[in-house]
Amino acid sequence: MTTYNLALIGFGGVNRALAELIRDEPQRFSSLGFELRVVAITDLAFGSLVQGDGIDLAAVLAMPRGSSFDGLPGGSSDPRNEEVIKNSPADIVVEATFTSPVDGEPAVSHVRWAIESGKHVVTTNKGPVALQGTSLSKLAAGNGVRFEYEGAVMSGTPVIRLAHKMLGGLELNAVQGILNGTSNYVLGRMEAGLRLDEAIAEAQNLGYAEADPTADIGGSDVRLKVAILANELLGATIHPSDVHTTGIQDITSDDVAQALANGLRWKLIGEARRESDGRIVASVQPIALEADHPLAGISGATNAVSFTTDLLGAVTVSGPGAGRVETAYALISDIIAVDDFVKGAVRA
Amino acid sequence: MTTYNLALIGFGGVNRALAELIRDEPQRFSSLGFELRVVAITDLAFGSLVQGDGIDLAAVLAMPRGSSFDGLPGGSSDPRNEEVIKNSPADIVVEATFTSPVDGEPAVSHVRWAIESGKHVVTTNKGPVALQGTSLSKLAAGNGVRFEYEGAVMSGTPVIRLAHKMLGGLELNAVQGILNGTSNYVLGRMEAGLRLDEAIAEAQNLGYAEADPTADIGGSDVRLKVAILANELLGATIHPSDVHTTGIQDITSDDVAQALANGLRWKLIGEARRESDGRIVASVQPIALEADHPLAGISGATNAVSFTTDLLGAVTVSGPGAGRVETAYALISDIIAVDDFVKGAVRA
Repeated sequence: MTTYNLALIGFGGVNRALAELIRDEPQRFSSLGFELRVVAITDLAFGSLVQGDGIDLAAVLAMPRGSSFDGLPGGSSDPRNEEVIKNSPADIVVEATFTSPVDGEPAVSHVRWAIESGKHVVTTNKGPVALQGTSLSKLAAGNGVRFEYEGAVMSGTPVIRLAHKMLGGLELNAVQGILNGTSNYVLGRMEAGLRLDEAIAEAQNLGYAEADPTADIGGSDVRLKVAILANELLGATIHPSDVHTTGIQDITSDDVAQALANGLRWKLIGEARRESDGRIVASVQPIALEADHPLAGISGATNAVSFTTDLLGAVTVSGPGAGRVETAYALISDIIAVDDFVKGAVRA
Repeated sequence: MTTYNLALIGFGGVNRALAELIRDEPQRFSSLGFELRVVAITDLAFGSLVQGDGIDLAAVLAMPRGSSFDGLPGGSSDPRNEEVIKNSPADIVVEATFTSPVDGEPAVSHVRWAIESGKHVVTTNKGPVALQGTSLSKLAAGNGVRFEYEGAVMSGTPVIRLAHKMLGGLELNAVQGILNGTSNYVLGRMEAGLRLDEAIAEAQNLGYAEADPTADIGGSDVRLKVAILANELLGATIHPSDVHTTGIQDITSDDVAQALANGLRWKLIGEARRESDGRIVASVQPIALEADHPLAGISGATNAVSFTTDLLGAVTVSGPGAGRVETAYALISDIIAVDDFVKGAVRA
């Protein structure tokens, strides 16, 4: 059986969830025809750890927050990201650091170092994909490695790969999505009678919304995802700042109630569309959808993307858009794609 | 570029739509890396036509109903299905005759003849898949050819292949679907105030429902699809008669109105589920779904399948479940899968 050596860059919720699955469920991977071994971990808090014969995941997962890899064989209190990414014996670099919506750093550099040193990269990080996706994909192709990022849009729910592999031979003319669970939850609770601030507070109590919900409510989280979808699925070359963005902060309880009374439902819709002149236009904005719109029935924190195609009309996929295990699954699906590539089972 | 020779078995709506796409849009296929040439057509009404260097599709598509292939070079007024399937120079047999819910014939024989003569088979015909899918798949594997049938469940909307290829590494524990557009349309119209018989009449006027709507309303259409999903995705070995089936014929306007008042929506749900003892239980029945159920918002003639997975929870795909062009696309997606197989780009 093939063994892939992994370097985990960032040891927060998502990469910890992946490490737990590798520790607890080796049969999940062996049934796919490969085995995963973590040979390096870097993290701002823990530092770095490189052990070419495989890190004891049970031991590092049990380390309390605030402790350090310093003192372990191959350990350091310093993350040493560049050195670990370039020189560790990893086949696949798993990038799961924080998302910078401005320049995508440090993730962009992490991805670049990995690709340039001949390693495949899988990531759930929107930043590098939204801001440098096209150039990084080109770099990967030139270096004969894969750059996979299914989790950047809707965590483990397949979107990018679904469009590429399941809708072959169709002309894709538009992509519309509910791409932020917090704002969708908030709008749903406003339909149930809450005010915006009450609904946000409830979402925060449930752990859906951050302490600062601006990126969710104001639409900037969705903007990054729309840029990814536009570039990846419609062949655009846009920057997130090209996505005209309006959040739900000005939607009132009255707006929601009045729409409901008319059979309409407010949703925060991220959209990229090919105009008749070939231009790709992308936006994020609240839209009051007719009840029979494919996204009108997407409730709670669920995310969804609807593809407008020439032969099938609308095809819609919905599922989780967040969650540590759900996002870790995106990494697994990316590793399956790397494995397909390594084993030659990829459509030319 | 690879050229695939096709034999079209049945020249009704779906295979005519495929022939029209081949006639009108060769670039759709060349962009996929292959070219399609129809070398044989058989049909109960037209008879049979075999022309190894390619049939003039514009000419045969222009032939009026009631005419015959007799008199054309390679033509006969007799369908000669067995001879054409076994001896025509086709690489891929496209089976689109009528569905027999009893024994799957004549499609089962058509598929068997094709496989045994070393030809790939693509079909949109539920009958052979629901009734003989496992044995036919085994026969195909033994003969080194593909038997592909994405269109048997939800026309061109990807379901079977999506589960196999996009949900790898997940444990799939249940599949629930809205798999009949007519009954879903009828239930929606009953929510708008129509009686069952009025809603059925309207569906008939719109061309959704057959003159005899029994298979749609009574659930037997969905039963075949549930058997396919149970066998294909949950590894069951059930016969359609094992699927406990109740249609929507006894749902009243009062039932629908009362459910709506309680925030519930009646849907005809086809379902296969793995019980804790490993048994697969399959059913078709009307269920009053909570508003936040992934299938509650599926409206009109749209179909949908929701997969219950261990790491992602529910992932749902919705799209058309019928239509001649939509179903012809299922055949195209099957031919892409054959091409992947021929070119070695298939995961082992």
